Amino acid sequence: MKYLFVLFFVTLASTAQVSQESLNLMPWPQKIEFKSGNFALNAFFKVNVTGQPNSRIFVAASNFLRRLDGRTGLFFKQGFVTSTNEFPEAQLQINCVKAGKIGLYEDESYQLTIQSNVISIHASSDLGAIHALETLLQLLQNNATSFYFPNVTITDMPRFTWRGIMVDAARHFQPVDVIKRNLDAMAAMKMNVFHWHLVDDQGWRIEMKKHKVLTDKASDGLFYTQEEIKGIVKYAADRGILVVPEIDVPGHASAILTAFPEIGSKVVTINKGSSETTQKASGLVTYSLERNAGIFTPTLDPSNPRTYQLLGEIFDEVCPLFSGKYFHIGGDENEGKDWDANPKIQEFMKKHKLANNHELQTYFTMQLIPMLKKHQKELMGWEEIMTKNMSKEAIIHSWKGPNEGVAAGASLVNAVKNGYKTVLSNGYYVDLMQGVEDHYLVDPMPKNTVLLPEEQARILGGEATMWTELVTPQTIDSRIWPRTAAIAERFWSDATVTDLNSMRKRMKVVATRLEELGITHIRNKEVLLRNISNYQDTAALQTFSAVCEPLKIYSRNAGGIEYQVYSPLSLFADACTPDAEDALQFNQLVEEYLKNKSVTAEEGLVLFFNKWVQNQKDLEGISKNAPLVQPLLPLSKSLSELSEQLLLKLQKKSEYKATLAIELLEKCKSKKHADVELAVVTGLKKIVEF
Amino acid sequence: MKYLFVLFFVTLASTAQVSQESLNLMPWPQKIEFKSGNFALNAFFKVNVTGQPNSRIFVAASNFLRRLDGRTGLFFKQGFVTSTNEFPEAQLQINCVKAGKIGLYEDESYQLTIQSNVISIHASSDLGAIHALETLLQLLQNNATSFYFPNVTITDMPRFTWRGIMVDAARHFQPVDVIKRNLDAMAAMKMNVFHWHLVDDQGWRIEMKKHKVLTDKASDGLFYTQEEIKGIVKYAADRGILVVPEIDVPGHASAILTAFPEIGSKVVTINKGSSETTQKASGLVTYSLERNAGIFTPTLDPSNPRTYQLLGEIFDEVCPLFSGKYFHIGGDENEGKDWDANPKIQEFMKKHKLANNHELQTYFTMQLIPMLKKHQKELMGWEEIMTKNMSKEAIIHSWKGPNEGVAAGASLVNAVKNGYKTVLSNGYYVDLMQGVEDHYLVDPMPKNTVLLPEEQARILGGEATMWTELVTPQTIDSRIWPRTAAIAERFWSDATVTDLNSMRKRMKVVATRLEELGITHIRNKEVLLRNISNYQDTAALQTFSAVCEPLKIYSRNAGGIEYQVYSPLSLFADACTPDAEDALQFNQLVEEYLKNKSVTAEEGLVLFFNKWVQNQKDLEGISKNAPLVQPLLPLSKSLSELSEQLLLKLQKKSEYKATLAIELLEKCKSKKHADVELAVVTGLKKIVEF
Repeated sequence: MKYLFVLFFVTLASTAQVSQESLNLMPWPQKIEFKSGNFALNAFFKVNVTGQPNSRIFVAASNFLRRLDGRTGLFFKQGFVTSTNEFPEAQLQINCVKAGKIGLYEDESYQLTIQSNVISIHASSDLGAIHALETLLQLLQNNATSFYFPNVTITDMPRFTWRGIMVDAARHFQPVDVIKRNLDAMAAMKMNVFHWHLVDDQGWRIEMKKHKVLTDKASDGLFYTQEEIKGIVKYAADRGILVVPEIDVPGHASAILTAFPEIGSKVVTINKGSSETTQKASGLVTYSLERNAGIFTPTLDPSNPRTYQLLGEIFDEVCPLFSGKYFHIGGDENEGKDWDANPKIQEFMKKHKLANNHELQTYFTMQLIPMLKKHQKELMGWEEIMTKNMSKEAIIHSWKGPNEGVAAGASLVNAVKNGYKTVLSNGYYVDLMQGVEDHYLVDPMPKNTVLLPEEQARILGGEATMWTELVTPQTIDSRIWPRTAAIAERFWSDATVTDLNSMRKRMKVVATRLEELGITHIRNKEVLLRNISNYQDTAALQTFSAVCEPLKIYSRNAGGIEYQVYSPLSLFADACTPDAEDALQFNQLVEEYLKNKSVTAEEGLVLFFNKWVQNQKDLEGISKNAPLVQPLLPLSKSLSELSEQLLLKLQKKSEYKATLAIELLEKCKSKKHADVELAVVTGLKKIVEF
Repeated sequence: MKYLFVLFFVTLASTAQVSQESLNLMPWPQKIEFKSGNFALNAFFKVNVTGQPNSRIFVAASNFLRRLDGRTGLFFKQGFVTSTNEFPEAQLQINCVKAGKIGLYEDESYQLTIQSNVISIHASSDLGAIHALETLLQLLQNNATSFYFPNVTITDMPRFTWRGIMVDAARHFQPVDVIKRNLDAMAAMKMNVFHWHLVDDQGWRIEMKKHKVLTDKASDGLFYTQEEIKGIVKYAADRGILVVPEIDVPGHASAILTAFPEIGSKVVTINKGSSETTQKASGLVTYSLERNAGIFTPTLDPSNPRTYQLLGEIFDEVCPLFSGKYFHIGGDENEGKDWDANPKIQEFMKKHKLANNHELQTYFTMQLIPMLKKHQKELMGWEEIMTKNMSKEAIIHSWKGPNEGVAAGASLVNAVKNGYKTVLSNGYYVDLMQGVEDHYLVDPMPKNTVLLPEEQARILGGEATMWTELVTPQTIDSRIWPRTAAIAERFWSDATVTDLNSMRKRMKVVATRLEELGITHIRNKEVLLRNISNYQDTAALQTFSAVCEPLKIYSRNAGGIEYQVYSPLSLFADACTPDAEDALQFNQLVEEYLKNKSVTAEEGLVLFFNKWVQNQKDLEGISKNAPLVQPLLPLSKSLSELSEQLLLKLQKKSEYKATLAIELLEKCKSKKHADVELAVVTGLKKIVEF
């Protein structure tokens, strides 16, 4: 009888219909239909491809098998998928009508149908089929002993055609393996544009055959060979991703000018011996690679024909490395100081009737359009390139917002109203260490502005930007992920998908699975903490990092000179991340406690306070043999002492000292220690003040 | 008074002389002199290089600064070291008399002197200076708040000139980043030969311009481009490491023959229709890439001129990629079955008076010598190449031992007695998952054989071999390290350095510091366990893995067909390592307890037994949502139940059942579960039997 009961229970479990809430899909698909039953996996599972796909589907199908292998330990007998119709009887059938092309406006839709005996993917092209395989991997379920997919039909397509990540490989060089694993993660999140910021004040990162001086003098030996670049473009294309390279001009030019000072705008006043004659001498100016962070003056000379000759030669060599249609030329943050001070440039402006630096920059940028056209590339630039004379073919990259003293993404509306295509990055600056909700709720489509349909159509999508002033190859993954998974959902899913609790729950699961693609956000945190603890027990550091977040919005490394591009950034702040693990839960517990004084909430708070009191002792313990732990002690001490007070307050003990609590709360708000801030201050404040 | 006391204590601590036992150096240097006092580190620490070094010293000095930055968080102001005498007043002075050359017999000695105000390195060349920098990093000490080096003078040089690691990139391809980080780890252990096994039955891993068919048909797209190879050779040279490539011929040839079946030895008997005529037809033979592990028959045809023509063309393309003097041509495990069955080859042997397959193979190998000579390369091969006609210039790689039915490294003595130079790998097969002591106590210099000085001089050194039948890029580091650090000590340090306790203690510390070079042995174990636990708490898996070791010496994947080259190997056995963390301690506790029945030992044993009883419950708990945990339960259950019995036994309870304990011990000895074995069986057996 017992045996029968077990059997019955298993049958029940395996035919039960999954609920929408139980699925951890991200980005959330456009449409899901649930059926009863499951598709059970075993080692004989095979994949078959039909139709006329691009060969990237074979890479994707083989990788899909291996990832499913790794998770399930089933180790399917099928090795590499290499051609169409290898196994007509396979349980997974992938049909692609045609070969997908890497670029915008491609049909990326798919339909995924899971039935108990067969799984089928139908897609217009391999691009959609690749997305379907990622959805399928996210659908994997298990019970105690086996793995299965729930019977569902998913019909899906992206909301925006540009779903990008920018990686700054100039400030901190990011090696090939970093780029590749992040391309894998992008594909897992159905993102399709990799914007590669290759040149800035801190370095030139492209091997040049003709002008070897660029890497010889301006890369510290850290650059991508042309073969590596072509390899990455291919790797990206195999994952449905377009690569958009960026060479930032005319500002951010320290690296270029370190190699070619003769095309710089700077002039110096020199005193010639005893005659004391003074002359402007641009030929004597030298530049050097920037080691710090900030906005710097070195700028190309737009009045010098040699500038355009060199840029033309550079584009002639760089453009063919990239198969995509777009080339980003930067154009941001040129303050024009060296232009103002250069008489030759001032004369040039008068002659060409250029009223101001903005018009001069437009003149400069317009010269680049034919250089790119020659290689079938269209120009893209940061929003500063948009002035009245700028070609309407250019794509405007909207990035400014309140940090720059303007309304969030104001240039986006201007751009589409003026006939430009545009991509939004304001609101998606993941380097600013903000919480995920700050990005998730930003929509590329402006909410309070009425746009005509054709104007809306010019909003291509958005792009998360990973600037690397404070980001090394060791920490970059934890700065991009998992928050960018939520941004990817914004770019792909319906505009109405905005539930924060659902997003957080799904992001947490999806984040763990990024590990199988080599993403290091979890493992490298542990590496950093082990080093900080001097290879003692890291538990106390883990506990403290669960309430600490790195300083946000340009407040770390203020002035840009505390850390240099060669600083390894192995500090506690580098191990911490936004969305500190315990903070949300603590702050919510406080809300709950204040609302109804529930015993459960009080017990939860007591647990937290006791943990923090104990943790200060533990941190002090390991600090005796770990200098890198010392800087954390003051903030941890404040949290510990405030916790002691709040324990007294909760227990209504007379020993509670209200003024001391207020003092300690102020200390807990400090941003002066170890480059971190306490993410539980909101909750602490409410408890102190109630 | 308290303040004064603290000050006094600090002063005392910082001038106290360190003891030999407190230093975690590996390999242990030839000579250390201790002085009182320390060199204190601060952010203004700088490096200066003088003399006539090769430019690799600048790479090494810059990397040294960054690693010290990362550990200490001091973030020195000095960025990249790029030329000699940049900072004459620097605290670290490196003097190299001349530029070192990559190869054997180079002077790698150094003297490192740390004084309270200056650190100086004197070396014959940059090669020795690089070793000195590694020693200096290992000397780093700290108190609660700061970092310092103890005042010592170290005079050091290697015992053997060949201190190598072989990595098999054929069976499981190992990407460039895996190779590079392991080159860094090798340099940290003062190793100087990277033997790169690039071709085997499972794949051809070298981009070929002329014979693209080799990678098209025989690599699954997994190979190194020529640029990558040259990059790795340069990367190795910058770390003082010689790269020795291997193309394994004439056996292990499935990959080559998949591309060029016409140079294979196999013949087939075919039946021609109804006439039933039978003929030997080598032209109709096809080969395919091997997916399993084992010794296979595909072998090159030594009687076919086309074989030598192709090999000549291959060497013409491959040799120039490597700047070193040695080329390994394999030559192992050719069983000659296809030669025996091939009438054309039999005829060839008669004609050339070759009495047996061994002589035929020598004939074959001798043809390769001039092909390599043409490129200034000397031939090296596994011991099977050594027969009476083999050129004395060849280096014999001794690998066979008891597993192959011969005395350990017998060929080494034969080789040197016959005038060959030789390298020992028998005893250093780290893929066999043996404990570190099994390798550490093997000396390249045979102990029980009297050799003449010139014979001894022919023993160049040794090489750890990392065969990758069961090793992926994710797990390779944990298979090489930390055990190979102990092997490196055998190759470098004095023959009398053999204390196992000292070695284990030092290896443990050195192992952690390999993390800073990107070695993943610690972090990736956690990644694997997270996946196995299905992202639940991994504590129970950690506890169990601390007593489990992967099956040893070819007993995992018996028959070679359970796992394929594309299996991701993400199982519990892949997370486990030799020298299981708790096993040594437990087995020692048992010894101690049995010797004197000490209360401390008994308490220690009780703690272990209780932990294992509880752990079975915890494993069962997570297994409810983790299919990959299921295979571990039977072994854990046996350990748990035996622990319960042994707790009763220790407490002299009447409920103890001796026969049950014996039964459970047998179950604990099982090697049938999850590809692992319990490393605490020795101790358990003693407790059961006492």
